[in-house]
Amino acid sequence: MKRFLVCLIMLNLSLCKFPALTRGDEGMYLFNDLPLELLEKRHGFRPDQAWADHLRLSSVRFNSGGSGSFISSNGLVLTNHHVASDTLHKLSTPERNLIDDGFLASTLEEELKAPDLELNQLVSIENVTDRVNQEVDESVSPEQAAKQRRAIIAKIEEESLEKTGLRSDVITLFGGAQYHLYRYKKYTDVRLVWAPETAAAFFGGDADNFEYPRYNLDATIMRVYEDGKPAELDHFLSWNLEPLQDGDLVFVSGNPGRTQRIFTVDALKYLRDDRIPYILDFLRRKEILMQQFGLRGTEQQRRARDELFGIQNARKAYTGMLDGLQNPETFVTKSEQEQAILDALKMNKSDPKLIQAWDQVRKAQAVKKELLGQSVSLRSTLFQIAMDLVLIAAEDQKPIEERLSGFTEASRESLLRSLLSTAPIYEDLEQVKLADEISILVEKRGADDPLVREILAGKSPRQRAAELVTKTKLISVEQRQRVLDTGQKAIDESTDPLILLARSLESEYRRLRAANEEIAETERQAYALVTEGTNQVKGTGGYPDATFSLRLAFGVVSGYVEDGMSIQPTTDFEGGYAHAEAHAGQVDFDLPDSWMDAKSKINLNTQLNFVCTADIIGGNSGSPVVNRKGELVGLIFDGNIQSLTSDYLYTDQQARAVSVSGVGIIEALRTIYSAGNLADQIGR
Amino acid sequence: MKRFLVCLIMLNLSLCKFPALTRGDEGMYLFNDLPLELLEKRHGFRPDQAWADHLRLSSVRFNSGGSGSFISSNGLVLTNHHVASDTLHKLSTPERNLIDDGFLASTLEEELKAPDLELNQLVSIENVTDRVNQEVDESVSPEQAAKQRRAIIAKIEEESLEKTGLRSDVITLFGGAQYHLYRYKKYTDVRLVWAPETAAAFFGGDADNFEYPRYNLDATIMRVYEDGKPAELDHFLSWNLEPLQDGDLVFVSGNPGRTQRIFTVDALKYLRDDRIPYILDFLRRKEILMQQFGLRGTEQQRRARDELFGIQNARKAYTGMLDGLQNPETFVTKSEQEQAILDALKMNKSDPKLIQAWDQVRKAQAVKKELLGQSVSLRSTLFQIAMDLVLIAAEDQKPIEERLSGFTEASRESLLRSLLSTAPIYEDLEQVKLADEISILVEKRGADDPLVREILAGKSPRQRAAELVTKTKLISVEQRQRVLDTGQKAIDESTDPLILLARSLESEYRRLRAANEEIAETERQAYALVTEGTNQVKGTGGYPDATFSLRLAFGVVSGYVEDGMSIQPTTDFEGGYAHAEAHAGQVDFDLPDSWMDAKSKINLNTQLNFVCTADIIGGNSGSPVVNRKGELVGLIFDGNIQSLTSDYLYTDQQARAVSVSGVGIIEALRTIYSAGNLADQIGR
Repeated sequence: MKRFLVCLIMLNLSLCKFPALTRGDEGMYLFNDLPLELLEKRHGFRPDQAWADHLRLSSVRFNSGGSGSFISSNGLVLTNHHVASDTLHKLSTPERNLIDDGFLASTLEEELKAPDLELNQLVSIENVTDRVNQEVDESVSPEQAAKQRRAIIAKIEEESLEKTGLRSDVITLFGGAQYHLYRYKKYTDVRLVWAPETAAAFFGGDADNFEYPRYNLDATIMRVYEDGKPAELDHFLSWNLEPLQDGDLVFVSGNPGRTQRIFTVDALKYLRDDRIPYILDFLRRKEILMQQFGLRGTEQQRRARDELFGIQNARKAYTGMLDGLQNPETFVTKSEQEQAILDALKMNKSDPKLIQAWDQVRKAQAVKKELLGQSVSLRSTLFQIAMDLVLIAAEDQKPIEERLSGFTEASRESLLRSLLSTAPIYEDLEQVKLADEISILVEKRGADDPLVREILAGKSPRQRAAELVTKTKLISVEQRQRVLDTGQKAIDESTDPLILLARSLESEYRRLRAANEEIAETERQAYALVTEGTNQVKGTGGYPDATFSLRLAFGVVSGYVEDGMSIQPTTDFEGGYAHAEAHAGQVDFDLPDSWMDAKSKINLNTQLNFVCTADIIGGNSGSPVVNRKGELVGLIFDGNIQSLTSDYLYTDQQARAVSVSGVGIIEALRTIYSAGNLADQIGR
Repeated sequence: MKRFLVCLIMLNLSLCKFPALTRGDEGMYLFNDLPLELLEKRHGFRPDQAWADHLRLSSVRFNSGGSGSFISSNGLVLTNHHVASDTLHKLSTPERNLIDDGFLASTLEEELKAPDLELNQLVSIENVTDRVNQEVDESVSPEQAAKQRRAIIAKIEEESLEKTGLRSDVITLFGGAQYHLYRYKKYTDVRLVWAPETAAAFFGGDADNFEYPRYNLDATIMRVYEDGKPAELDHFLSWNLEPLQDGDLVFVSGNPGRTQRIFTVDALKYLRDDRIPYILDFLRRKEILMQQFGLRGTEQQRRARDELFGIQNARKAYTGMLDGLQNPETFVTKSEQEQAILDALKMNKSDPKLIQAWDQVRKAQAVKKELLGQSVSLRSTLFQIAMDLVLIAAEDQKPIEERLSGFTEASRESLLRSLLSTAPIYEDLEQVKLADEISILVEKRGADDPLVREILAGKSPRQRAAELVTKTKLISVEQRQRVLDTGQKAIDESTDPLILLARSLESEYRRLRAANEEIAETERQAYALVTEGTNQVKGTGGYPDATFSLRLAFGVVSGYVEDGMSIQPTTDFEGGYAHAEAHAGQVDFDLPDSWMDAKSKINLNTQLNFVCTADIIGGNSGSPVVNRKGELVGLIFDGNIQSLTSDYLYTDQQARAVSVSGVGIIEALRTIYSAGNLADQIGR
C-alpha cells in the first residue's frame, strides 16, 4: 500500500479516482506473495509461514477442473460432487448408476479406481520471469516471440522434471508480466470412497444453481493411493465442527480457473459484443443437443447428463456475466479507472510504450474477433483421440523446444492418461456430437469451402458422422496404444476414417493454433506493459488474474440484502426439508429416499450451507474453507448469481461464495449415509 | 405436360436433365387451377367442380396458424390439438388447466369462447395479376415499385371489402408472377367444444415429434357461432369410418404456410449458410429462455409451455432442413436443374432479362444477409401492443394506399382483434422475454450504438425490462382501447414507458421495414422472371410455393423403408399402449388416466394414425384428409423427419404426411372421453 500512497501524493491525484488496490475482500493471492499486511490491517490476523505451507500442502488440484483437500492421514480427499461427477460418470454403467444412486465403499477393497484422474499437490514455486524474458526477443514478430517463449518454457519444465521428478509447469502471471515455475506432486491412483445421490448434491438443479439460500450436499470423498496402498500424508486438514457465526474470518485455498480483471475496456467490449454472445450461442446449441439426445431414452439421458450439467452451468454463468457487461454502469466504472491510469501515466511522462500498450490490446481484439469460432478441432472424444494421435506422431519427431505446448515430455504422462483412458465412449453420443461439430464447421466456413467439402465427402453432417463413428477402430484402447507404439508409420498407413479426417484437418489446425498463439503473445506483451503501467500508478502488492493454479482468498461469513430482503448467511437441514416441500412436484426438488428416511434422526439445526465474501471463481469448486487455525469449516461449491460478474469486476455488496458446512458433511455421513466409519477417519 | 414435351423436343435436350414438372405426388395446387389431367393420369380420378367447391367450402384457415374443417351442419370444426393449443393456453388459468386436463363441453352453454381466434372460409378466388402489374412501373426504384404495388393491392382489397363485406386478401403467387384476390368469410365467434389431454395429443413429446410410427390423438373440436348461435353450415364433411388400406388415394385441403421450392441455388445457399443457422441460434436461445422460466415453478411452466412447444417444434424442423441443405447432394440436384434451365434459355435465345433474373436473386441474397437479424421489433406481447398503437396512430392519418400493409382498413378488424385480446399477459414472462430481446439488440447493434444506449437508459437489460413491464399500463385492455380512441394525441402525450420505448424505435423500425420491403420487391420482380423462364423451358401447369392460403394436395396411403426396416402405413390403439409401455419412465410417454381407464373397453385394433405421400408443410396442421368421395378419413398433424427438406425439395421416397385417422377420433370420443353426444353430431 505504501507505494500506492506515494504515487498518489507525487501525482497530486484525487483519491476517489483510485479505489483501493483491491476492494473489500477482493483478491486471489499467490502463495509466494500473500497479502500479510492487508490481512493484518483488515482482519487483525497475520498467518505465519507454517500455516500457509500446511494449507498449501493440504490442497490439491483436480485435472478434471476443480479443487480439493486432503482430510486424513490415510489419503482421504474432499471435493465437490460436481467436481467428482466426471469420474462418477465414467465409473457408471446402466447397472451401476453412481450419479443417481451415490456410492459408499465400506472397505478399502470396495473403493473404485478413477480411470483417468490426476491430482496435483503444489510442492514449490519459483519465479523464473527473468530467465524466460532473457530468451525472448520482443523485437521479432509475435509469431517468433511466441516460439521463443514456448521453447524456453519447455526447457525450464523439462529440466525441472528431470531434476526433481515432479510435474513442472511454468505459469504465466499478470497477463505476461511474470512467469513462475510450479512443481507438483502427482497422485494418479485416485479411488472413489463416498458420493451422495445427485438429488442431494445438486438439490434444486439448474433452477437453484447460482442461487442462495441453498441446501446442497455437494461433496464427495475420494482417496489417493501410492503403490497400491492408501497414501500416508503429512499434511491434511483437521476439522472444526463448531457452527460458523456471522462475521467469522475464513480462508479459501483453491485453484480459480480464470478471471479477466486485468482486461482493458476494449478487451471487455470484445467480450461483451463478440466473445460471450458467441459462447452463449454455442452453449445453448450444445445444451439442446444433449437434451435431445437424452430424450431418446433413460440410458441416453444417463450418458448425456454429466456433460449437460456442465453446459448448463456454463450457460447460466455466462448469461449472468453478459447481463453485467451489458449494464452501461460496468463500463462507466471500468472506463474511469482506466482513464485515470492513462492520465496519470501521461502526466508522469512515463515511457510511451506503457500507454501504447492499451492500444495494442485494442488492436488485438479485432484479430481475436476474426479468429472467433474458426476452430477445426471437432469436439468429440473420438475425434480428439484421432487428432492427438496424429499430432503426437508428428511432434515426437521434433526437438522438445519446437513442440506444441501439451506435447512436450513434461506433459506426456498427462496426455497419455487421457488418451488411453478406459472411460466408456458411447457411439450414439459420439455420432450426435460429431454430426453437430461438422455442421458447425459447414456453417462457419460455408459449404463451398474446399476443406468442408473434403470433410463431408458428399454426405450430410449426420450421415458423415454416422459413417465415421461406425467405422473407426479408435474406440478400442488397445488400438490407440498400437497406433501410439508405431508412431508416424501407423498414421501414414492408417485407413481409419477418423485418423484420415484428422490428417485432413491437421494443417488447418496448426495454422489456426499458430494464429491464436501469435495473438496471445501480442496480448501477453501488451498486458505485461499494462501491468507495469498500472503498478506505476497504483503500486504493486496485488494479485494476478486467475490461472487455475493455487491461490489464497479470504473473507467473512456474511449475509446480504437482495430486493429489500435480508438473506441470512447460513442454512440448516431443516431449511432443506422445507425447501423440498415448498417446491414439491418440480423437477430436481425431490430429496432422495436416504434423506427422507433420516429426517427423524438427523439434528435438523445442523448447519448445511453458508456464504462468505471470499473472492472465488470457477475452478475453486471443491476448495477447502478454513478458519484462522487452518481447520476445515467448509467446502466451496458455488457463487451466487451476483458473483458472476466477478470474472471481470469483484464486488462484495451482494456477491458471495457458497459453501457446504464441514459440520453438515459429518452429520450427513453419520446420520443419512451410515458412514460413521468414514467420518471417524476424517481429520485424523 | 404437352408444352413440356414440346420444349424438350425443340431443344433437343436429354430427358434426364428435366425431371417431370412435379415428382410423384408432389404439389400444393390452387383450387382455381387443379391438376385434373395429372390426377386422372396418375390416379385415374378426375374430381368435378362440385367436389372441389364442397371441399374448399368445408375447409377453414385458423389465424393462429393452421388449418381445419367444418364437420357438422351445426358449426363443428375439427383441427389439431396443437393448432388449438394457442386458444387452450389463453383460456387456461392455474385452476383450469385445459392444456394438462383437456376439456369437454356437455352443453352448448359450457362451450368456451376463444379470446381472439378468427377462422377464414375461402369463398372465391379472382386473378388480379394484370390489374396489379398495370399499376407498377418496374423501371422505377424497387422502393418506389414496392410502394406502387402496396398501394394497388390495398386499393383492390379495400374495394372488394366494400363491395362484398368479405375479408379480401391479395395473395402473391409464383414468387410474384401472379396475384390472386382471395375472399374469405370470417368466423370470429369460435368456441371450444372438446380437447384431449396434451399427454394424449402430444404423446411422445418432443422426442416423437416428426417421427413415425405415431399414436397421437392430436385433435380438438371447436364450434363456430353466428349471432350468438351455432352457425348453420351448408358445407361440411361427412366421415368415412372404414379403415384405410395401403395404396388408398387421399386428398388434403389445407393452408400450407411456406415453401421455398422456387428458390434458386444462390437463395438456397443463403438459407444454408446464413439464414437457417441464424434462425436456429435464435430458436435455441428462446428455447432455453422458456425452459429456464419454466424452472421457476409449476405455474411458470404452465405459462411458458405453449410457446416453448412452438419453439421446439420449429427448432426440430429447421434442424432437419439444415441437415438436408448441408448435404452436398441436395445442391447437386438443384444445380443441375437450374443449369439445365439456364442452358435451355440461352440456347433458345430467350429474352436476356430472364437469364439475368437468376443474377438478381443472387445479388438480393447479399442484401438479405446484411439485413438478417437487424430487427428492432422486440418480441414481447406488451411491446408489440405498444408498437402497434404507435403505428396505428400514425398510419391512420395517411391515405389508405400509403399505409403499411396490415394497417389498412381491410386488415383493421383482424389487427384490433389481436390488439384488444383479453388473453392473459403474464408480467413475469414478459419481463424475461423483453430482457432477452433487449439483450439481443445490444448484441446485434453493439452496446455503444446510440439507439441501444437510449433503450438501456443506463441499466442492464434485465433491470430495464423489469422497469418497463412494471410501469406500463398496457396490460389493461381498457387502457389500450383508450389510447386507440384518442389516436395520435394519446401517443404524443403518453408517459407510458413502453409507448415511449416504441416511439424511440419507430423510425428505425420503419427504416428496416422499408429496406426489407424493398429487397422483397426486388426478389418478387426477379422471381416473376425466374418463373417465366422456367415455364418457357418446362411448361406451365405446376403449383406456386405455399403462401398460407388454401391448396389441394393428393397422395396415397403408403409405408416406407427406413434403415432397412419396413414401416407400416397405419397404427392402432394397441400400438399406442405398447409404445407407452416400451418407454415407461420417460418424460412425455405416460398416457393420461382416461386412456388407461378405457383400455379394456376400447377396440384396440381401431386405426389411430396413418401416413400418406401427400405434399404438405407447416400450416397444413389440422387439414382434413378426404377420400375420393370427399369424405373425411383423417386429420393431418405432422410430417416425418424425412419430409422436413420438402420446404425446398419434395421427395416421396421416405417423406410422409402423418395423420390422425377419423375412425380413431370417433372411437376415442365414444370410448375414452364419454363424448357420444358429440360424436353423434359429427358428419351430419
